[in-house]
Amino acid sequence: MKSSRKKNAAKSPTHSFAPSWLIERKRDGHELTPEEILAFVRGVTDGTFADYQATAFLMAVFFQGMSLRETCALTETMLASGERYDFSHLAGPFVDKHSTGGVGDKVSVILAPLAAACGVKVPMMSGRGLGATGGTLDKLESIPGFQTQLSSGRFEELLVSLGCGMIGQSATIVPADKKLYALRDVTATVECVPLIVASILSKKLAEGAQSLVLDVKVGSGAFMKTRHRARTLAKALITVSKHLGLPCRALITNMDQPLGYAVGNALEIKECVEILRNTKTNDLPSADLKELTVQLCAHMLDISGRVRNLAEGRKLAHSKLADGSAWEIFKKLVEAQGGELRAIEEAPFLHHKAPRQTPILADRSGHLVRTDAGIIGKILIELGGGRKKASDTVNPSVGLVFHKKTGSRVKMGETLAVIHSENDADLSEIESLFRSAIEISNTRKAGPKLIFERL
Amino acid sequence: MKSSRKKNAAKSPTHSFAPSWLIERKRDGHELTPEEILAFVRGVTDGTFADYQATAFLMAVFFQGMSLRETCALTETMLASGERYDFSHLAGPFVDKHSTGGVGDKVSVILAPLAAACGVKVPMMSGRGLGATGGTLDKLESIPGFQTQLSSGRFEELLVSLGCGMIGQSATIVPADKKLYALRDVTATVECVPLIVASILSKKLAEGAQSLVLDVKVGSGAFMKTRHRARTLAKALITVSKHLGLPCRALITNMDQPLGYAVGNALEIKECVEILRNTKTNDLPSADLKELTVQLCAHMLDISGRVRNLAEGRKLAHSKLADGSAWEIFKKLVEAQGGELRAIEEAPFLHHKAPRQTPILADRSGHLVRTDAGIIGKILIELGGGRKKASDTVNPSVGLVFHKKTGSRVKMGETLAVIHSENDADLSEIESLFRSAIEISNTRKAGPKLIFERL
Repeated sequence: MKSSRKKNAAKSPTHSFAPSWLIERKRDGHELTPEEILAFVRGVTDGTFADYQATAFLMAVFFQGMSLRETCALTETMLASGERYDFSHLAGPFVDKHSTGGVGDKVSVILAPLAAACGVKVPMMSGRGLGATGGTLDKLESIPGFQTQLSSGRFEELLVSLGCGMIGQSATIVPADKKLYALRDVTATVECVPLIVASILSKKLAEGAQSLVLDVKVGSGAFMKTRHRARTLAKALITVSKHLGLPCRALITNMDQPLGYAVGNALEIKECVEILRNTKTNDLPSADLKELTVQLCAHMLDISGRVRNLAEGRKLAHSKLADGSAWEIFKKLVEAQGGELRAIEEAPFLHHKAPRQTPILADRSGHLVRTDAGIIGKILIELGGGRKKASDTVNPSVGLVFHKKTGSRVKMGETLAVIHSENDADLSEIESLFRSAIEISNTRKAGPKLIFERL
Repeated sequence: MKSSRKKNAAKSPTHSFAPSWLIERKRDGHELTPEEILAFVRGVTDGTFADYQATAFLMAVFFQGMSLRETCALTETMLASGERYDFSHLAGPFVDKHSTGGVGDKVSVILAPLAAACGVKVPMMSGRGLGATGGTLDKLESIPGFQTQLSSGRFEELLVSLGCGMIGQSATIVPADKKLYALRDVTATVECVPLIVASILSKKLAEGAQSLVLDVKVGSGAFMKTRHRARTLAKALITVSKHLGLPCRALITNMDQPLGYAVGNALEIKECVEILRNTKTNDLPSADLKELTVQLCAHMLDISGRVRNLAEGRKLAHSKLADGSAWEIFKKLVEAQGGELRAIEEAPFLHHKAPRQTPILADRSGHLVRTDAGIIGKILIELGGGRKKASDTVNPSVGLVFHKKTGSRVKMGETLAVIHSENDADLSEIESLFRSAIEISNTRKAGPKLIFERL
């Protein structure tokens, strides 16, 4: 039977690319050919592969995985499903960063103008938040007027004039990913390394990046909960990326507690503005956010050849924050993308101020040894500032402002965090969730490591 | 995270039954509760579980399997998705046979009237053929006028008056199975034991059977290619069946070569008529078909308590074939279900005679040691007499008539089989397929075992 089937498949190409046949081959653990992967991606995009066949295929991939050759083919055919920006006629280098997402992860908002100020071009294409993790697009859109849907011509103009642009994925960019992601999102097939790799890299290749730095987050507030899984994903991303001619490196970073002091879109923009302005307007804890941003910037400068080594990159990044160049570029970027400058320059709360601010006080003295980012992300969703499903709208005003971070000493009665909420929020539920997220111990514990390793 | 998620699930039942959550739980190998299985089956039937979510779930079941408790719940909720015939007010016993399907497997056509003649009631609900295996409905419908869509009232009348009725699955019987099977068929999720078990048993329970005999076929022309897999399926069927209060036993039988001498719907009806009439009208080899039918009948009589033991059952079955009672019932059944009596009584080829009959001759002398049923099934499809996909129509006239079966001695130039085809059939391709299906050896080999074991 087996040989006659094979013979038949070889004889009639339409049969060998039939959806049920491709599903069966993947289900049984066979390596698909690039042509078969192409048939899948094309079929999904043009509808000849029905949605219910695509999801069965995706679940089979979840269980059987994909080889390097398959993952490269998937990435390339997804990339080929839409438009690809090509900036090779422009002065570069074009370099981007991608984060797998975390709670309070607002790095991109600071990093794009900072790296541009350091002399590289950052064609940043971002997504929206889902679940506990926030999205750069949502954060930017909390600046009144800010447009993230730009034409490719306008995007190119910004890259030439400012060195960076921050856009959302348009309908013409990797349409296969849009379709596949929407299906994965509702069929428990998001958490699958080859599918994640192809989704990320097809978009980074489409946006015109010439090299890439990855921030693979691990911890309770990240997609990857264990170091092992984060490392597996990072390695796969690097291998496939290099295979496709995109130089790439990855940092594996800590997402056990939220990054910086703010969680919630408008509150996070305020924190970004403070770091970009380099003016200490409050004593809230942003050190981890600033450090990670500078490190990622240094890696972008290093991998793109803008500097000779990481130390030089770090030095340059620090100087461009200190001298206000990054802030100047950010202001121009906000203006150029239609955002209201006054909203970031003068009054971060001009448009988005939640009606209630409720401090949560320490109920004992000791050392804060845990601030569970996963639960904090859940609180943000409860407040209306995050999405349970992709179609949810987010409230940009609500969120949390941390006064203490893991590793801090706290005294009974001190403010741990302030909850920014609408009037109808169930604060007793939120406070009890918050208390389940933190732990105050008699024993001091060193502050958590920020960067676990570089790959 | 895990505990908060659990807590949330417990708090909001709509969330805990959300399709993506059920898919994730199955994907991760958790045992689903009967309530969760019900949510899946209901959701698939009422459309709240989208097709693309159902197929991801089914593929997760393919990889993770289902426990006994899950399979029982799936069977019961599928059963509950539609109408269930209840004949408990009528004199019984109501007993049925189910075959997993094979090439030339026309047993049901003979067995239903034969068992009825032996004094049990046979509420037989059959399906159509797909792939290499034929379907009882297709065979019956090659009798001009024969109706397989009967109202439940008419079905009951036939059971009372004749002791048997042969119908197709109506829209009101296990609609969940219709929907799920259509999805499984195009997503490589047919070959999955718990899904097969629930599909078979939900229908047998719905048709009103009070006990059940299974013919689980194994071999090149069967769904299950190995004894191990056939035994696994048979055991699962028996366990779940007994758990749901339906006494059940199984024979594991040989499907390495086609059953009887005819393959093709009208040709198979002709062979059935010859056995039912008990008149040797030709010297073609039907011994295996007759023997298996009598054995299965004996088991039906035994399991339903109609006889005291198998030997008595076999004796009774033989006598009801010999005295023409089974044939009388079959004639009445055909008439009652609208079929043209003349078509079976006088001229089996009255309506369906393929334009071409082409003998295939032995190209050497020796012993026929192989007649690959899988390839023969493929030939039937090539001739237009089988389905590649569920929506194909079948040509009832075409097929094969075997003059020699595995184990026979053949002489060079003797007819091995006659191909019944349309004029435009590619006979050279079919002959070469046929020759690849058979093997003539110098060494004699015993005829194949018909029944491997009883479970």
